[in-house]
Amino acid sequence: MKDYLAAVDVGGTKVSVSVSNREGIAAKRREPTCKQGDETALPMQIDSMIRGACNDAGVSVDDVSAVGVSTCSPFDRRAGRLGLTAPNLCGGLGWSPVPLPNDWEFIPLESELAARYASVSIGNDCATAAVAERTFGAGRGFDDLVYVTWSTGIGAGAFVDGRLLGGKHSNAMHLGHIPLHIDTEESYLDGWREATNLEPNAAGPAIARAYDGSSNTREVFRRYRSGDERARSVVTRAAKQFARALVTVTTLLDNRLFIIGGSVSNDWDVLEPLVSREFYAANPFFVQDVEFRKCALENYLGDLAGLSLVMPESWIHEWRERKPWERAPG
Amino acid sequence: MKDYLAAVDVGGTKVSVSVSNREGIAAKRREPTCKQGDETALPMQIDSMIRGACNDAGVSVDDVSAVGVSTCSPFDRRAGRLGLTAPNLCGGLGWSPVPLPNDWEFIPLESELAARYASVSIGNDCATAAVAERTFGAGRGFDDLVYVTWSTGIGAGAFVDGRLLGGKHSNAMHLGHIPLHIDTEESYLDGWREATNLEPNAAGPAIARAYDGSSNTREVFRRYRSGDERARSVVTRAAKQFARALVTVTTLLDNRLFIIGGSVSNDWDVLEPLVSREFYAANPFFVQDVEFRKCALENYLGDLAGLSLVMPESWIHEWRERKPWERAPG
Repeated sequence: MKDYLAAVDVGGTKVSVSVSNREGIAAKRREPTCKQGDETALPMQIDSMIRGACNDAGVSVDDVSAVGVSTCSPFDRRAGRLGLTAPNLCGGLGWSPVPLPNDWEFIPLESELAARYASVSIGNDCATAAVAERTFGAGRGFDDLVYVTWSTGIGAGAFVDGRLLGGKHSNAMHLGHIPLHIDTEESYLDGWREATNLEPNAAGPAIARAYDGSSNTREVFRRYRSGDERARSVVTRAAKQFARALVTVTTLLDNRLFIIGGSVSNDWDVLEPLVSREFYAANPFFVQDVEFRKCALENYLGDLAGLSLVMPESWIHEWRERKPWERAPG
Repeated sequence: MKDYLAAVDVGGTKVSVSVSNREGIAAKRREPTCKQGDETALPMQIDSMIRGACNDAGVSVDDVSAVGVSTCSPFDRRAGRLGLTAPNLCGGLGWSPVPLPNDWEFIPLESELAARYASVSIGNDCATAAVAERTFGAGRGFDDLVYVTWSTGIGAGAFVDGRLLGGKHSNAMHLGHIPLHIDTEESYLDGWREATNLEPNAAGPAIARAYDGSSNTREVFRRYRSGDERARSVVTRAAKQFARALVTVTTLLDNRLFIIGGSVSNDWDVLEPLVSREFYAANPFFVQDVEFRKCALENYLGDLAGLSLVMPESWIHEWRERKPWERAPG
């Protein structure tokens, strides 16, 4: 009976893998992300963790019918197969913020896993969060929704007309990397700089840095709540940038709903009035029928994101009723 | 034999309607766009023009199996059915640049046509152009493409993963209305102004206005070609804005191809190096695998745009071979 699914969550520091059947999450493993060896080392680690989790659950790896992977990105393709070109994993790209013990330029995730499992589905962590929220969380019943993570980075995953946006290399919705300015004296010809994009200006670390450079983001929000003027100014500016970026998204995708997740959204009660005030003051033709919701599955995305990519319809109804992710092994 | 298709092209000044069979475009009618009467006047005009074209072609209106409509927009929905809330048609919205002899707020296009025809498909003029270019023009074989019109306005239509983006009210890809600045001292709270968006700064009229306010756009390009410094500066700035807006699009949609149409793209030989230079200087992760092409069907979109929405697969192969649109009645 091939009635198990494996879900994989690949982050820059940790990989977690779970194995589930229709009843719920049967076993889970977590390890530091492998960054040494050849370019197949990480897919090999994932395979070995799936086998380990199957062992923990007392089932054979042959019982795994599909593997759903939620991962940091971006992706590229070789011979049509998706692989990772994530700067925080691939040392050979020369883009990593910290030194990496490898010279990888491409991690062949899809080809290596597809050689071992009958069905493999891969999405970046925001795309898979959008799938999970639409299946089990704040996006149920919505065909046109955008999940946005507002955290140490800013990213998004989108459904349009009931379908998840992928794009040629599954890199759609890298929202944090849109330019802050379309009209500007600057030109990319003078040297493209990531600093001119949304993320380095409005994500969590930017809020902390703009405040005093030594407080963390949560502290800035605490000061905002206690009436600190500087915190108010810094948070309001980030909220305005975020809102105007969402105006761009809605103008292009005509979405009905934004679901906001990520660590910065822990202070959504502070941010929501600031963001929505700016957002709804834009062109009413486009913004008037849009709704904002806080994400519902924040603490469960590690388990549900990859899983939602491959879960059959026949399980979904039961899982919605019983919410087995709330009783998953730690 | 229900083997005719009707194609409708609704513009702010003219409506054209054609009736086609598998062989080609059999008859065509063109009239000034009806702007008087009650809110159903325009759909009634379209119905009457379809009947007239059928008459011209010597066929019964009962032989029309589907109607494809390409129209100016935006759209809204009432009771689930699409209708027009185009500022240049609906006087009741109060957004028209010129006085309109009606107080319409919503033209019930879909419900009125669906009451008369078995199958009705409606898209805005950029979405339908994207469909036509992908079916018959510069986009054949591409699953991830964005058609952009650069004309008196700027708009777009997009395919992602082989599917046309619609959105909740079929208003996706109103590219001209994205904000030029995400980070700015301005706020929508001070009053949202269309002037802060892409279109009023980079579309054809903006190029002419920025030059001297009395030349038209084509003259500015002629002066550019003869080495006029002011023309060079004005055109270069518009090209840079356009390129950076396309960086935003690619960052969000991960498209493989841009197809550029519209009257400004008549000077694409001047614009292409300016646009692509700025575009390809952005983040290589996102922009490196993107291609630009001039549209292939510019002069035929009036006939092909609405038609492509409803053309059956069985016709498409033959039409690609024989290109009957090149021999359509005038």
